[in-house]
Amino acid sequence: MTELSVRALAEMVGGRLIGDGERMIRGLGDLRTAGPEAVGFVRDPRYHEAARGTKVGALLTDHELATDAAQILVADVDVAYAKVASHFHPMPRAIAHRVHPTAVIDPEATIEAPVQIGPHAVIGRSRIGAGCVIMASVTIGDDVELGRDCVLFPQVTIYDRVRAGDRFYAHGSCVIGSDGFGYAPERGSWHKVPQLGGVVIGDDVELGAGTVIDRGAMNDTVIGSGCKIDNLCHIAHNAQIGENTVMAAGCMVAGSAKVGKNNLWGGRSACAGHITIADGVRLGGGTNALRSIREPGEYMGYPPVEKKRFVRIQKAIVDLPEMRAEWVESHEETNGEA
Amino acid sequence: MTELSVRALAEMVGGRLIGDGERMIRGLGDLRTAGPEAVGFVRDPRYHEAARGTKVGALLTDHELATDAAQILVADVDVAYAKVASHFHPMPRAIAHRVHPTAVIDPEATIEAPVQIGPHAVIGRSRIGAGCVIMASVTIGDDVELGRDCVLFPQVTIYDRVRAGDRFYAHGSCVIGSDGFGYAPERGSWHKVPQLGGVVIGDDVELGAGTVIDRGAMNDTVIGSGCKIDNLCHIAHNAQIGENTVMAAGCMVAGSAKVGKNNLWGGRSACAGHITIADGVRLGGGTNALRSIREPGEYMGYPPVEKKRFVRIQKAIVDLPEMRAEWVESHEETNGEA
Amino acid sequence: MTELSVRALAEMVGGRLIGDGERMIRGLGDLRTAGPEAVGFVRDPRYHEAARGTKVGALLTDHELATDAAQILVADVDVAYAKVASHFHPMPRAIAHRVHPTAVIDPEATIEAPVQIGPHAVIGRSRIGAGCVIMASVTIGDDVELGRDCVLFPQVTIYDRVRAGDRFYAHGSCVIGSDGFGYAPERGSWHKVPQLGGVVIGDDVELGAGTVIDRGAMNDTVIGSGCKIDNLCHIAHNAQIGENTVMAAGCMVAGSAKVGKNNLWGGRSACAGHITIADGVRLGGGTNALRSIREPGEYMGYPPVEKKRFVRIQKAIVDLPEMRAEWVESHEETNGEA
Repeated sequence: MTELSVRALAEMVGGRLIGDGERMIRGLGDLRTAGPEAVGFVRDPRYHEAARGTKVGALLTDHELATDAAQILVADVDVAYAKVASHFHPMPRAIAHRVHPTAVIDPEATIEAPVQIGPHAVIGRSRIGAGCVIMASVTIGDDVELGRDCVLFPQVTIYDRVRAGDRFYAHGSCVIGSDGFGYAPERGSWHKVPQLGGVVIGDDVELGAGTVIDRGAMNDTVIGSGCKIDNLCHIAHNAQIGENTVMAAGCMVAGSAKVGKNNLWGGRSACAGHITIADGVRLGGGTNALRSIREPGEYMGYPPVEKKRFVRIQKAIVDLPEMRAEWVESHEETNGEA
Repeated sequence: MTELSVRALAEMVGGRLIGDGERMIRGLGDLRTAGPEAVGFVRDPRYHEAARGTKVGALLTDHELATDAAQILVADVDVAYAKVASHFHPMPRAIAHRVHPTAVIDPEATIEAPVQIGPHAVIGRSRIGAGCVIMASVTIGDDVELGRDCVLFPQVTIYDRVRAGDRFYAHGSCVIGSDGFGYAPERGSWHKVPQLGGVVIGDDVELGAGTVIDRGAMNDTVIGSGCKIDNLCHIAHNAQIGENTVMAAGCMVAGSAKVGKNNLWGGRSACAGHITIADGVRLGGGTNALRSIREPGEYMGYPPVEKKRFVRIQKAIVDLPEMRAEWVESHEETNGEA
Repeated sequence: MTELSVRALAEMVGGRLIGDGERMIRGLGDLRTAGPEAVGFVRDPRYHEAARGTKVGALLTDHELATDAAQILVADVDVAYAKVASHFHPMPRAIAHRVHPTAVIDPEATIEAPVQIGPHAVIGRSRIGAGCVIMASVTIGDDVELGRDCVLFPQVTIYDRVRAGDRFYAHGSCVIGSDGFGYAPERGSWHKVPQLGGVVIGDDVELGAGTVIDRGAMNDTVIGSGCKIDNLCHIAHNAQIGENTVMAAGCMVAGSAKVGKNNLWGGRSACAGHITIADGVRLGGGTNALRSIREPGEYMGYPPVEKKRFVRIQKAIVDLPEMRAEWVESHEETNGEA
């Protein structure tokens, strides 16, 4: 049962309760249309008027409002909303043990109960923790270890020798543990270098759809606990991503790069191989780092510069044609004078 | 039977017939090698000589040619070719009802007849329109609605609560409805924000292989009718793409961005979140829009500028080292004088 | 049996043997920890000290070392390592014929023995060479030809009319033969142009996870023998990639582009449609080529310039704000004087 009292919700989010804590709440609701069994939220002064006339049972807010609804005052409405919404709309989690008859599971696999395994899933000689939900057409190789309460969405592929912690979420068509890109050239052609490492993924990692994490060449590729990596990202062999680092869609980390903790990368950012990005670095979307970044801070562009400078560079680029025209002209004058 | 008379072909493309309209045509053919049951086309004066001696039964052309073939004169050979080629090589469409015995279909699914459902497909409590072709290993969640004559190529994943119109084509390994990328930070770690919206896709939309469309956070992500989105594109949560917009491979639209109708984006273009791109905007390949573009027109670069200026910027960038060297030198002189 | 004498290993890599050639080697090992049945390697002077005390049976090295291990002296340790590692850790290859009972294979398919076909694989009216390993949930259409000893990792999709040579390796969720991106515009909407060509892939080609190769519009898309294309790359319709060309992750080749032999593209490089890139071109990561590159060499940037100039451009870009500020100021002065 997911129904909760307003008081219990306030406790869940660490908020201060104003008004009736005994009302029972059954879900989220729009403060303009929902009724007394819903909890709404107000993040924006534009909704203060709507809050005044709302019929919802409770409101999450960071300002005390004039309203008949119970109020749960919190410092950060976004965090409170995330927690409350996750209570009413949790990630899938296996409660009952259900394995679809079309799934193909190696007899030597170790499947803790309860798990849910969908149609046409394939699981090798691997270990799957309790609570995991393995959706349709997922394929998992041998010597894989998944912690508890993981969710693999349809068509995810996990190669051999990948290890992930608890609450690992991988969206549709992710590929984890594919061969790193390693070849040795000899007289114009290429010898494949076998990729003998694995992938190690911490707890609470989420990977977006179509994202690929390659296995290491000799050692492992490592994704730290708490990392969130969006769609269509690429993490090359032997890369190491520190804890709680977040990368938006299309980011690419080249081989053996070491990205620190608590990075925040905008979409389509990238870094070169074998470099180091410090902890606490923020990269604006589209940033391309060819060299190590040693200091935390906010960078953007190609080359990455501090964001304020980036904005000025963008402005200057637009004027480049005129700047160059005069520069060319000045040379012609000089030449003319010569 | 796909055989058609030349006259019927001329009517299909709205062309003017010259010559024998009663000949029967059975397919496309190269005007240099094919015989009288083929229709060829001439888009380029280089082929006028070949047209003179051709044995094909009919030619699509925008100029009257000296040839024994029947001629179908049209204003736009490309459009006429697309129509004629689509007649002889149509997209797959279910005529007979055929469900592969290995497909796993929820007993509460509503499958109109006829449809084709391939091996290992998985369909939840959803509605599939007549004429649809669901290929091998496609997985469809619950509360999905597909219109008529859709084609889902192998390994496509559709999450719950996605709605698509008629003639929706999604190529291999597309993912539609994956969770948007939303987290709320608290003391260095991240709380997942449940993604409660869906995806709404109009009629006549085609998605390339590996493309991902995320579901909305609260409202829906919307792809307008007639949109064509190439391979490995990413459309983030709550984005809205206007009708008949075309994006080449690798384009990325960040969260809550609103892209207008009849846009034409070159490959690897992108726009930032929460901005607006007007109707009728063309972006050259690799364009990166961080701010709204309010006027239709042709833009390119980073920042996006009008295409002519972009070309001049590219030229200027090449000269930057010398421009900078003189600039540095002039400062050294100044310093020396001081 | 993969066990080999040191002498046989030396012969395999064309190296000069120093010491006992009769020792039997059973695998790779770290020279600091492994025992006499392992072969180690030394690429870096930092390991010379470790080599002195090593217990491994043999060392691959390009310098004669002070060590009790047998030594195999080679000109290129990387190549020798690739060969030795591939001996002990070869790519999967079917030795025994094993078709999983859940695989769905067209009765008219031609499957040479031995092959391995995994669970839930789907194979149309196609030809699969001996030695191939088709992993779980791979789908192959009709009129596909695969040579010998190919490996298709899970979830790979091959559309109809794709032809690949021997030792074709395609990683998870690759899509080969999807429709090229072709539409003809008429009054604001788009007519699909049927994509009637195929894909032709040579011998010894490897494709990374999530990579997409589109089929040609009329003729074929062609990937030359020996090409290695990393994760999440896109090769558009009718592109031609010359032999032994290597592209790191995220590269994109637009339609009808012709890329030469022995190219080496850094990650996220791209080229425009209908252009030609010469043989022997190296592109630094993130390079964007809008025009043909006629001369072999090393290019980088957007526009691509020789690498040395690229480094100077990057440096100049950082100074642009000040350069522009003075330029603006000089104009204001001029205006003030006027």
